[in-house]
Amino acid sequence: MSVDPVALTADLIRCPSVTPEEGGALVLLEDLLSKAGFTCTRVDRNGTSNLFARWGNRGANRSFGFNGHTDVVPVGDEAAWTVPPFGAVEKDGMLWGRGATDMKSGVAAFAAAAIDFVTDTPPDGAVILAITGDEEGDATDGTTALLDWMRDNNEAMTDCLVGEPTSPNVMGEMMKIGRRGSMTAWFEVTGVQGHSAYPHRARNPLPALARLMDRLASHELDQGTDHFDASTLAIVTMDTGNPATNVIPAACRGAVNIRFSDAHSGDSLSDWLRAEAEVVAEDFGVKIVTRIKVSGESFVTPPGALSDLIARAVKDETGVTPELSTSGGTSDARFVKDHCPVVEFGLVGKTMHQVDERVEIAQIHQLKAIYSRILRDYFA
Amino acid sequence: MSVDPVALTADLIRCPSVTPEEGGALVLLEDLLSKAGFTCTRVDRNGTSNLFARWGNRGANRSFGFNGHTDVVPVGDEAAWTVPPFGAVEKDGMLWGRGATDMKSGVAAFAAAAIDFVTDTPPDGAVILAITGDEEGDATDGTTALLDWMRDNNEAMTDCLVGEPTSPNVMGEMMKIGRRGSMTAWFEVTGVQGHSAYPHRARNPLPALARLMDRLASHELDQGTDHFDASTLAIVTMDTGNPATNVIPAACRGAVNIRFSDAHSGDSLSDWLRAEAEVVAEDFGVKIVTRIKVSGESFVTPPGALSDLIARAVKDETGVTPELSTSGGTSDARFVKDHCPVVEFGLVGKTMHQVDERVEIAQIHQLKAIYSRILRDYFA
Ligand SMILES: [Zn+2]
Ligand SMILES: [Zn+2]
Repeated sequence: MSVDPVALTADLIRCPSVTPEEGGALVLLEDLLSKAGFTCTRVDRNGTSNLFARWGNRGANRSFGFNGHTDVVPVGDEAAWTVPPFGAVEKDGMLWGRGATDMKSGVAAFAAAAIDFVTDTPPDGAVILAITGDEEGDATDGTTALLDWMRDNNEAMTDCLVGEPTSPNVMGEMMKIGRRGSMTAWFEVTGVQGHSAYPHRARNPLPALARLMDRLASHELDQGTDHFDASTLAIVTMDTGNPATNVIPAACRGAVNIRFSDAHSGDSLSDWLRAEAEVVAEDFGVKIVTRIKVSGESFVTPPGALSDLIARAVKDETGVTPELSTSGGTSDARFVKDHCPVVEFGLVGKTMHQVDERVEIAQIHQLKAIYSRILRDYFA
Repeated sequence: MSVDPVALTADLIRCPSVTPEEGGALVLLEDLLSKAGFTCTRVDRNGTSNLFARWGNRGANRSFGFNGHTDVVPVGDEAAWTVPPFGAVEKDGMLWGRGATDMKSGVAAFAAAAIDFVTDTPPDGAVILAITGDEEGDATDGTTALLDWMRDNNEAMTDCLVGEPTSPNVMGEMMKIGRRGSMTAWFEVTGVQGHSAYPHRARNPLPALARLMDRLASHELDQGTDHFDASTLAIVTMDTGNPATNVIPAACRGAVNIRFSDAHSGDSLSDWLRAEAEVVAEDFGVKIVTRIKVSGESFVTPPGALSDLIARAVKDETGVTPELSTSGGTSDARFVKDHCPVVEFGLVGKTMHQVDERVEIAQIHQLKAIYSRILRDYFA
């Protein structure tokens, strides 16, 4: 059997599955996988649709999992598109449309590879697809819902591949073995309002905010670790909204966003941020309220059997040895990592989330070939 | 002759002379002063009304001048007033209304003192009133228009008293012999926008702004001089307006307001501010555009004959020895100082610009008595 991953990608693009709409994408996959012998279960939670599909026995010795999403970000300025965003137009050797790279092609390539594989050379083990419709949204009822359901139903993946786009420019150049942690801290500094001519009668919150932000931005969090680049802290905003130059305002705000290596945790950084705010508040005699949101902890699947297998498959199909990176934003791998070893490998992500999102057709075929080789090698 | 300064203040309060409206206030004064033998000229420029009045000869050996304003700030939230703001209600020993302290009572007290004085004991010299209707506004066509007109018409004051409220709490406790300079600097910091996860690909303007503001606010401009308190710098705002924590913004803004002693000038401080901005721009690889507005240079009429005379009169009438201060915001003395020695003395300024502005009736009489004594002593 041979499923065409390009036709499947096009079919998926034609499903307008903007988060949280299912848009027909999961129904289409469920139908296709069921026919190929996969046991499919729709795992829906709070209005979000997800699909669990397993070929082989529950509780198999070895089960290879794939995690991806069919939901897409909104089309944005539709007038700026040169093609219909859900039209799946083929032109210039590329397939165009929302989700073309992120990541309907990834889902299609794996589904096609998996169906061919289990049909042609049925393995001694299980192949699982855990496909979510809530990756681009809050991700609260997506992959976590699937993992919760799997735990409750004794379903397990031995290893997992997440099919998000991973390469910045060249097919095969990068895979991801972890992600930096991400967190945001908001500081609300409150002093006492007054007249600019009498600063000693006021208590200006602004010098405290400037000092705090300078201290935080000047601090070296680390110089990088074995698998991580140096952690970064970016001041993302400072705001007052005081138009009157003769008025010392009562309050101001600032926020920083931190991307952190495995030298830190959300807790250790929260402690540091609160301590810094306290020192500055004390020094300037102002009140600083700190609010922190940890979006994800840093994690890494240390290089080993899984990453070796995938790197080898990529090298064999593309001639490129992928870098084992932990860079970039968050993905659902942050949830999967609590379940089993997880590595990410997918397409070049250049046009993701943009107008005229598109993918080279040849690369969809290449991606299917890589995924096929991974499955063969995994069960060899 | 004896003009009642309380009745005159009340009459002036009933003129709704919110800048730039003349409101009948200058017409009333012109009428009163003309009848008392003053030569009056309306010096109006660009729709702003001002009044020049002289008793005695132009070119007299000695001429004592008084500078004040009849315009008032808006009433603000009229519903919050317990009396009609232009009603000049007398109650609880006080006269209530917009301009009661700032500074229709000061104008009335001096006009009353001057009329009595020239009528009862005609001096060998001239008494001049330079009253503007544009002190609370931009002040571009107010006292400067009067001084321009005086120069063009060979009118001169040997010394000048500005009748603005000068005492914080107790009648007579403070007179002003100068003012600190005032200036505002706006900094627009521009970098390169980017994603918080990849700060090395962006150029964040915010750390540069934080550093610049911290440097400026931490710097000691001076420790005060003979007649001035230490200069102050207040950060008045820092703004970005970036709601997205995953975005490093392209630009941000900050502003500082400086009140400076005679150890500095607008130029010397502008040089310093621009140099600091340049150092930080260089350090952070961002662009900083600095815009500066000097509202007034610092100035002082060194303690001498004029301040001695006024201090003595205040002491004799109130029992309080006034402090010779250079504190506070700007006043039109900053224009008069280029014309002749100038000192400011007036009422307690507690309720100026506030809802329910009011003045103790006894203090209006007291102020007239002080002004009368100043005139007598000056021409003695
Ligand atoms: Zn994605
Ligand atoms: Zn005033």
